[in-house]
Amino acid sequence: MTSNQMGYYFLQVPGPTVVPEQVMAAMGMPLLDHRGPKFAQLAAQAAQNLKPIFKTKQPVIIIPASGTGAWHAAINNCLSKGDKVLIPEVGMFSTLWCKIARDLGLEVIEIPGDWRSGIDTDKVEEALNADTNGEIKAVFATHNETSTGVTSDIPGVRAAIDNAKHGALLFVDTISSLAAMNYDHDGWGVDLTICGSQKGFMLPPGLAFLAIGEKALEAAKSSNLIAGYFNWDPLIDATDTGLYPYTPPVSLFYGLKKSTEMLLEEGLDNVIARHAKLAKACRASVTHWGLETQCQVESQHSNAVTTIRVPDGVNADELRAAILKDFNLSLGAGLGKLQGKVFRIGHLGYQNPLTLMGAIAGVEMGMYSFGVSFNKGGTGAAMDILSK
Amino acid sequence: MTSNQMGYYFLQVPGPTVVPEQVMAAMGMPLLDHRGPKFAQLAAQAAQNLKPIFKTKQPVIIIPASGTGAWHAAINNCLSKGDKVLIPEVGMFSTLWCKIARDLGLEVIEIPGDWRSGIDTDKVEEALNADTNGEIKAVFATHNETSTGVTSDIPGVRAAIDNAKHGALLFVDTISSLAAMNYDHDGWGVDLTICGSQKGFMLPPGLAFLAIGEKALEAAKSSNLIAGYFNWDPLIDATDTGLYPYTPPVSLFYGLKKSTEMLLEEGLDNVIARHAKLAKACRASVTHWGLETQCQVESQHSNAVTTIRVPDGVNADELRAAILKDFNLSLGAGLGKLQGKVFRIGHLGYQNPLTLMGAIAGVEMGMYSFGVSFNKGGTGAAMDILSK
Amino acid sequence: MTSNQMGYYFLQVPGPTVVPEQVMAAMGMPLLDHRGPKFAQLAAQAAQNLKPIFKTKQPVIIIPASGTGAWHAAINNCLSKGDKVLIPEVGMFSTLWCKIARDLGLEVIEIPGDWRSGIDTDKVEEALNADTNGEIKAVFATHNETSTGVTSDIPGVRAAIDNAKHGALLFVDTISSLAAMNYDHDGWGVDLTICGSQKGFMLPPGLAFLAIGEKALEAAKSSNLIAGYFNWDPLIDATDTGLYPYTPPVSLFYGLKKSTEMLLEEGLDNVIARHAKLAKACRASVTHWGLETQCQVESQHSNAVTTIRVPDGVNADELRAAILKDFNLSLGAGLGKLQGKVFRIGHLGYQNPLTLMGAIAGVEMGMYSFGVSFNKGGTGAAMDILSK
Amino acid sequence: MTSNQMGYYFLQVPGPTVVPEQVMAAMGMPLLDHRGPKFAQLAAQAAQNLKPIFKTKQPVIIIPASGTGAWHAAINNCLSKGDKVLIPEVGMFSTLWCKIARDLGLEVIEIPGDWRSGIDTDKVEEALNADTNGEIKAVFATHNETSTGVTSDIPGVRAAIDNAKHGALLFVDTISSLAAMNYDHDGWGVDLTICGSQKGFMLPPGLAFLAIGEKALEAAKSSNLIAGYFNWDPLIDATDTGLYPYTPPVSLFYGLKKSTEMLLEEGLDNVIARHAKLAKACRASVTHWGLETQCQVESQHSNAVTTIRVPDGVNADELRAAILKDFNLSLGAGLGKLQGKVFRIGHLGYQNPLTLMGAIAGVEMGMYSFGVSFNKGGTGAAMDILSK
Repeated sequence: MTSNQMGYYFLQVPGPTVVPEQVMAAMGMPLLDHRGPKFAQLAAQAAQNLKPIFKTKQPVIIIPASGTGAWHAAINNCLSKGDKVLIPEVGMFSTLWCKIARDLGLEVIEIPGDWRSGIDTDKVEEALNADTNGEIKAVFATHNETSTGVTSDIPGVRAAIDNAKHGALLFVDTISSLAAMNYDHDGWGVDLTICGSQKGFMLPPGLAFLAIGEKALEAAKSSNLIAGYFNWDPLIDATDTGLYPYTPPVSLFYGLKKSTEMLLEEGLDNVIARHAKLAKACRASVTHWGLETQCQVESQHSNAVTTIRVPDGVNADELRAAILKDFNLSLGAGLGKLQGKVFRIGHLGYQNPLTLMGAIAGVEMGMYSFGVSFNKGGTGAAMDILSK
Repeated sequence: MTSNQMGYYFLQVPGPTVVPEQVMAAMGMPLLDHRGPKFAQLAAQAAQNLKPIFKTKQPVIIIPASGTGAWHAAINNCLSKGDKVLIPEVGMFSTLWCKIARDLGLEVIEIPGDWRSGIDTDKVEEALNADTNGEIKAVFATHNETSTGVTSDIPGVRAAIDNAKHGALLFVDTISSLAAMNYDHDGWGVDLTICGSQKGFMLPPGLAFLAIGEKALEAAKSSNLIAGYFNWDPLIDATDTGLYPYTPPVSLFYGLKKSTEMLLEEGLDNVIARHAKLAKACRASVTHWGLETQCQVESQHSNAVTTIRVPDGVNADELRAAILKDFNLSLGAGLGKLQGKVFRIGHLGYQNPLTLMGAIAGVEMGMYSFGVSFNKGGTGAAMDILSK
Repeated sequence: MTSNQMGYYFLQVPGPTVVPEQVMAAMGMPLLDHRGPKFAQLAAQAAQNLKPIFKTKQPVIIIPASGTGAWHAAINNCLSKGDKVLIPEVGMFSTLWCKIARDLGLEVIEIPGDWRSGIDTDKVEEALNADTNGEIKAVFATHNETSTGVTSDIPGVRAAIDNAKHGALLFVDTISSLAAMNYDHDGWGVDLTICGSQKGFMLPPGLAFLAIGEKALEAAKSSNLIAGYFNWDPLIDATDTGLYPYTPPVSLFYGLKKSTEMLLEEGLDNVIARHAKLAKACRASVTHWGLETQCQVESQHSNAVTTIRVPDGVNADELRAAILKDFNLSLGAGLGKLQGKVFRIGHLGYQNPLTLMGAIAGVEMGMYSFGVSFNKGGTGAAMDILSK
Repeated sequence: MTSNQMGYYFLQVPGPTVVPEQVMAAMGMPLLDHRGPKFAQLAAQAAQNLKPIFKTKQPVIIIPASGTGAWHAAINNCLSKGDKVLIPEVGMFSTLWCKIARDLGLEVIEIPGDWRSGIDTDKVEEALNADTNGEIKAVFATHNETSTGVTSDIPGVRAAIDNAKHGALLFVDTISSLAAMNYDHDGWGVDLTICGSQKGFMLPPGLAFLAIGEKALEAAKSSNLIAGYFNWDPLIDATDTGLYPYTPPVSLFYGLKKSTEMLLEEGLDNVIARHAKLAKACRASVTHWGLETQCQVESQHSNAVTTIRVPDGVNADELRAAILKDFNLSLGAGLGKLQGKVFRIGHLGYQNPLTLMGAIAGVEMGMYSFGVSFNKGGTGAAMDILSK
């Protein structure tokens, strides 16, 4: 190891996030027979702990896959070949959702977006109103677009569907929002919520989650797509029995039980308030630096990640590489059309004011060394928020 | 904890298996940015280490899923709707393979088997000879049937295909055989080898592997099934670049690098010889007890797991529950039509003579307490093998 | 690693013993400020948990040192230069106690013993009766002699002192007995009990314990030896405040809290019953083998360790080395005059029937391979005990 | 856990310091037979790795004790009752050294100091010149006074002894200096160097070290103090054989091997340069804040810890408690006569620019919330140093 690799590694990408020591310790316990009583109890408890975090009384299934697997599962359990789905473009991940939907045989109606603001709910309503034959089977909404740091108004999307008196299902991707910002599966009338383990849940990647509402369960009965590995019926049973149709990732279940306990002990409102404060402080630094956030709508800034545009002429990827090398700090890359134009500071999961201050200081020093033009003093601006 | 839960937990199911301390420690390292240089290097190295274990020069992809996910991936990347596949029945897992093949839209020709012997290669040849139009696109062979402890002759299956001058692809499930018994993807002319992390690889569940031969790569070009999440193209690229199309299970990659290093350091031949000796010792106990192994063909006994039939009138599941409670020892359950009629002793992965002796002693004491009729002294018979 | 080093390592020496995964996990938590509130709470709780295990209401101090440090501390806090102490010889550790007592300036009256039986309480009484001037200031008794596997009758020693109406203090070494066999500091009228972390407490070495009775506290006031680092006054305070006079081994305190919780949860009586059964089973094997235990008095066999004499002509150290190499099993060495003539099977701490069976099988196979003359079948004899 | 306890804990006391994940992982390996070949190899290697860090070819012994134990060992192995020792006062730890020296029977000549500057080497020379009968047997010098953040000029002390043509031994306490600032046992002519595991070595507390020069070895032959547990003869042998006279803390030896490997891999010069830069940055913040460091001599500032005086009227302990509660940041307390008047920022061990920035930000925000009068912007001053 070189000197620059000594000391705490500041993993400030918006996932995978830092795993708490207690969760790591839980995952280090000996493997279990996944068909035995101890695992059954562990798995059922973990599944139970998920419900208050999604704010649902419906089953939340656990899938051994990455978040993309949850997208695949959502589509193939609920929809049919050729179904139309409406997907408002908000950034890279909504775009990837379009892609996988098309790959799996759906017809995608994409509402174009500028990657700098959230879902335009008027346009959603308009599109649904135009769909007089009810051909659109689902609206896919990204709650927090990880590539841009822009959130969308999910109750607003719900209202758009309701206003249009349209029967489309509402699928919401909360992969980078859950346990970082307020979310209410039942209260907001969401039909299917998609999430993953490696962000707000403070776990390694490897588990995906689906909270499944009544209407989604109903819709699944007439799906003609093939879920195969992702067939959710046995996984729904497993939320009660802990008995999985294949060998589940035992170690991640240990971790999930522990990390959900930690979130519930901290209290969801406190978890969200902590993230909101960190995000606000981060933005205060950006403003002070004289840089622009990718998000242009004040009310849509993300609690989880701040995407920052670098001045013209600066290659954000080279800047990030220099910061990693000099300061043992990983920042998120610009994705898709933002490649090289932005960097992202993740501030979700097992984070606190001082880890954020380390990250902000690292960015500030890195920009200085790299010759980026900016106003020094961003740390002070962040501290003004954090010391309140 | 009760007294019976103190001390080393004898996890003697045929997967998940015991994870070595060094591997656990490796997996406990801080999460990494999965798009950064350190992960890229780690992932590429892990993928490289897989090749000598599969004995292949072809790419071995790493999929974040359980072994069932690898089956799904194998089918949906290579085959087309309605394709016929030939699946010799050898036990529960070959049966599950039939099921997932049918679920995913294939037409399955199953060669019935008795669950007590391996693949009848003559019948394979016969079925292929009968397929004069070449409608059978693939033969699915299970190398080691985990439910029965019976292995099959994969070179024999290859020879059957060759003898029939048939173009069917050969898919082999090595989930419970790899790193426990001899296997040679390239040398045996296998087109697609399927494996998972939680058995011979001594890792937690959560990763699946596919070694992909030339013909399988070629066949994939004309597949009309939809792989979606399981699309192997980007995963093949990732074996070189370490850059995954979604967030990969970073912690398991740390573990995979370490566990493959351990296997390669021990030496594959030594790994297999260790398993062979443990298996032989286990069978010596069974013979001494006067019980029957599920496997009835001497040359087909598994190195990985021994499936033991209990005398009529004994409920094997109740026996296992009693042994777990009294001796902190988990044994494998009877699956499918064997439920309650057999128990299984897994002896693969991070195992040695004395862990096996603990397991055998636990079984012997458990059978005695449970009132099973058997000849005491199975430990001595095992020791006669192990002390050689 | 070679094949023989794969799988669980059977650490069957009578200390250090196997550390449970939960305790290892607790010790892996981040270091703490040893002057902060969290450590204070942790340390006070750990000290509190020790009391029911020593069965005392008196303070039990925690010293950052090995068990030998506790001996040094016991002497230098309580006694004065030239004080006479009576030490019954029972084996290597009583002999070492004589040595350190002499090193520290005491005059030792040693009651010779044969290393095959416990303290002769009549001789203790006799020696005290002969000490008409009350020059003997303390009797040092070893509860369980780790080198021989022989226990002594501590209430009997107490009675001897009382019968002689002698004012000598009673110091008891319980390093390898506590949490393995019954012990009662208060009830048995012991003045000073010495222990260490690395045996029944299932912790790594590094902590020593002293339970200090009223009379020992009183005696300390007139001691003229210099305790220095081992001065117990601030350590007694620390049992309440958690504030140590130097930087205490924070990680071991985490572990101590956890391991004492485990012992108390299992229940001390159950802990002892578990050890008693393992010890009995071990001796049944020895008897079956036709070998001799070092302990010759039936009622004095140790719950913690069984010392086994090898036949003439066998070098026990070479035998142990071969067993370690072939079976990944560490056995205890013969110490002092027993070197090469015995080996020891430790069965204390985080042990259960199947770890013992692994050890017994390893010894039996090792003896066979090494050419020792013995009767095979020791495993069966042990199982007869353990399956009851 | 409350929100304020989530995220990385900033342990910025000057010991115990943060233990690297790799070291924690090493310490989590299964315990070993301390008399077996594997431990012997481990212990000998660890002892070997210590030599280049102390810059010595002499033996460096490893004692299972805290640093205070090393002091005790130093005195009781080398000196005799009533020996005079010269101890320049530099702060709390030199004062404690006086105390233990007196406790152990030495006569201490203390050179008074102001706790704000290092050893006055002229006064050392003067005192030695005055000792015409050569009654002073040793000079005890503290290299880095942990309570004040003041270092002393050890080559200067050596020169003072040489100039006085005096035969006194030179004992140096490097507990908080080694592996943080330049030190050269052999080159500087030190006779006995004392250190501990929990600071620059990045290990939990529990091991003490003594580097023993020729003259100290010689002097030991005529010592009449009793070392007992601390007798260094068998520990010197153990540096080669790995065979300890009592059960050594196996887990810490695993850790020591790993942490010394890390230091040697980083390179001692780089380790020291890293510390120097962090210390300089920390002082830049203090200057900017308009606060005073306890150290008043520019050339004597410590690389390991910065001691900062709070303005009159501020209770530094209450400030520290508030910072811990609000920011999960532990700062060092004021010790002895500095209690409540200073706080200390430890920046040694597994530390880097961003952990320091987190700490500085935490102090700045804490002082603000607590109502301390200071100039904001200390983070910027530190960054000016760190980004160079």
